[in-house]
Amino acid sequence: MPPPSTLSLPEQLSLLSLFLCSIAVVGNTFHGDGEPLIASLAFSGMAFSATYAMIRWLGPTFMKAGLRGKDLSKVHKKEIPETMGAVCAVVYLLVAIVFIPFPFYKDIVAATSGGGNRDVVVEVVNIETGRFLHRFPHNKLASYLSALLSLQSVVILGIGDDLFDIRWRHKFFIPAFASIPILIVYFVDFGVTHVVVPTPLRPYLGELLNLGWGYYLYMAAIAIFAPNSINILAGINGIEVSQSLVIAGLLAGNDILYLLPPSPPLHPATDSHLLSLYLLLPFIGVSLALWTQNKYPAKVFVGDTYCYFAGTVFAACAILGHFSKTLLLLLLPQIANFIYSAPQLFRLIACPRHRLPRFNARSGLLEPSVTPWTREPNRLQSLLISVLEKVGCLGVNRDEDGKVRETTNMTILNLWLVWRGPLREDRLLNEIVCMQVIVGLGGLFVRHKAALLIFTVDNL
Amino acid sequence: MPPPSTLSLPEQLSLLSLFLCSIAVVGNTFHGDGEPLIASLAFSGMAFSATYAMIRWLGPTFMKAGLRGKDLSKVHKKEIPETMGAVCAVVYLLVAIVFIPFPFYKDIVAATSGGGNRDVVVEVVNIETGRFLHRFPHNKLASYLSALLSLQSVVILGIGDDLFDIRWRHKFFIPAFASIPILIVYFVDFGVTHVVVPTPLRPYLGELLNLGWGYYLYMAAIAIFAPNSINILAGINGIEVSQSLVIAGLLAGNDILYLLPPSPPLHPATDSHLLSLYLLLPFIGVSLALWTQNKYPAKVFVGDTYCYFAGTVFAACAILGHFSKTLLLLLLPQIANFIYSAPQLFRLIACPRHRLPRFNARSGLLEPSVTPWTREPNRLQSLLISVLEKVGCLGVNRDEDGKVRETTNMTILNLWLVWRGPLREDRLLNEIVCMQVIVGLGGLFVRHKAALLIFTVDNL
Repeated sequence: MPPPSTLSLPEQLSLLSLFLCSIAVVGNTFHGDGEPLIASLAFSGMAFSATYAMIRWLGPTFMKAGLRGKDLSKVHKKEIPETMGAVCAVVYLLVAIVFIPFPFYKDIVAATSGGGNRDVVVEVVNIETGRFLHRFPHNKLASYLSALLSLQSVVILGIGDDLFDIRWRHKFFIPAFASIPILIVYFVDFGVTHVVVPTPLRPYLGELLNLGWGYYLYMAAIAIFAPNSINILAGINGIEVSQSLVIAGLLAGNDILYLLPPSPPLHPATDSHLLSLYLLLPFIGVSLALWTQNKYPAKVFVGDTYCYFAGTVFAACAILGHFSKTLLLLLLPQIANFIYSAPQLFRLIACPRHRLPRFNARSGLLEPSVTPWTREPNRLQSLLISVLEKVGCLGVNRDEDGKVRETTNMTILNLWLVWRGPLREDRLLNEIVCMQVIVGLGGLFVRHKAALLIFTVDNL
Repeated sequence: MPPPSTLSLPEQLSLLSLFLCSIAVVGNTFHGDGEPLIASLAFSGMAFSATYAMIRWLGPTFMKAGLRGKDLSKVHKKEIPETMGAVCAVVYLLVAIVFIPFPFYKDIVAATSGGGNRDVVVEVVNIETGRFLHRFPHNKLASYLSALLSLQSVVILGIGDDLFDIRWRHKFFIPAFASIPILIVYFVDFGVTHVVVPTPLRPYLGELLNLGWGYYLYMAAIAIFAPNSINILAGINGIEVSQSLVIAGLLAGNDILYLLPPSPPLHPATDSHLLSLYLLLPFIGVSLALWTQNKYPAKVFVGDTYCYFAGTVFAACAILGHFSKTLLLLLLPQIANFIYSAPQLFRLIACPRHRLPRFNARSGLLEPSVTPWTREPNRLQSLLISVLEKVGCLGVNRDEDGKVRETTNMTILNLWLVWRGPLREDRLLNEIVCMQVIVGLGGLFVRHKAALLIFTVDNL
């Protein structure tokens, strides 16, 4: 049975009312001087309803165009639509573009002759109303547009990846290409490559250190790592969207900390965090809609497009908001997964095409998937296996002589199953997501408390 | 035999040397104060070689992913790769993004604390060197980025169109969606909606007329019309790329008129035309590369993606350069084709799925394709047919009783064949392109000479 491509009446009614309410709220922001944060929330509501409906409607079209995949962890391995992240991304981009006039005010009114010359330039006096969440000056617009360009680039390349099934080695660089717009505009428009040196190092390095090109390499590394790290923590229903929602939620929570009244209203970081929030809210909207269709049992798959897209949203927030270290704290589970996966990713240990947990059709539970050892591990491999086995971080199956027959694949999903025993797919997801929330909250706590130890002030 | 996916040795050598020369030229622009126009030319050279090579290399990948089509106007109807315009567009976008630092200078250097605050802001004194082709001020950056956003949007939607085979009614709006970024940023950033009134109308309307929202509707109409008009003048090898190259060449020629020494060096339209040239040169580069593969006999097809992409490049130039009326003059053959097609497009007369000229396998020539009349035409249809027949603008095939049996399909390609008799595919293309060049040159002549009659000054 293909997934239902129509919306039930209750679904139609609730989506339509959410959509209409959101439009009403946006319309209402025109009456005052336009409250961009309220408008952003309302746009996110619209994005949710549009994405929800479009994912349903477009399902059969995607299947017909060959964008479909089998769900391997189910008894009935039916085909469902793939690459639905592209729908999210397109809705997100449209909303993010239509949102532009809300936070960015116009500060010049002029008249043009037919040839487009500004013949008459009338300066409009900008009345700074002293509102707490004031609008952005003009120079933030280029940053915002560059973030959108990077997102569109990653969507184009991500769709290419989903269509052409690009090799892993090449995939890795997709986010690198996509980060070019944001880095180039940063270079032209902002160009700040000095960083404040932590107090203990100041005697040696001075108060400010110019990283120069190193700063761009660092930002590029963030932009490459975030999407790829989300892409490799995959394989069970809902994991890509759930982990992205947790990170987005925590980042948005962190942004809100800077906007709450106790913070000094003219704090220079306020603008950066407001910009980050404008990028995150519609992302949460479209991702929630995708989550309803991708959660266990999945009705659609998200595709690599979604993972790249989500990671690039986070990288854009971190680069434009200048909180890359905070992002890295929230990506700790993904970093752990990457480090743990490294022996397989870099072919120190054999790596099968798919490393997702193995579905046991009899019990209906997921078990760790394994890599068979057809020949004796070499000395380095043996060392790695026995160390990991000793600290309980690898399931090893040996024959009577103690020879290694199989080892579990090195992803934190398989590791979790090694620790906790076979679990149902949704249970595994929930436990991983809980772990991620706890780690993330801990990371934010450390970030705001420990910052005082190594910098003179926490910039909260 | 599938098209060769490898490059011959002479091809490799010439592409490589062009690429390396271009890199050398770009590197050389760093020595002086960076001459953006030279850099743009060199980037276009790189774009040409990259596109040429990638179209060849990616051919089999596109075929495998289902992006392939049959060439109907050949004796051997073999399948060749489709949607190669997407490769052009991706190379173009990458080049256009990497080019950003050349024309846009950085005017502020600052230092940030870890939290991204501009702690230390150092104003760098801008030395206006008085060069003729000076760099752009910061506020043009947003316009340029918005053009790239629109182009990326049209590429994403165009790929969707080529993948999902969207209905004609829906296709029509793809460029409308894609024009949103450029219009919104125009609204936020420039917002000029006054136009200079032609002299004869000044007693009634005043010197400047504020079109308000009407101006945005007008620009949206340009952005919708240009891509669609290129998309419907299609059906023979090379026509999409050739017509786009002619328009791009004439637009670039017109831009150069504004940059040549006789023009006053500080003319306010210079900047607009320079920006337009930066958008056009790499477009000409990628299109020439596509043309070598798409010209008769075609080795690849361009796909709707290319048509939308080309039209959006022109619309972006016209909107940002404020010469929409000039663009319309250069689109005269497309406008004629659209008006002539209108009875079929709007279903006044039956419209088959494909209206391309019919290939006569015996003669090897193209003949006008026809729509059969299974029932009597109604009065309006009869009137239209007899009027068009009388002025020689429709081929009509009648039975002995004078009843209409077939009429030729209403495209200028078929009309040209009605006038000129059966032609070989490449001959038809060459004649149409010659006609287009002559009409375009005439249009430009009229534009610069006749402007003086209705405006007080030609803004050249």
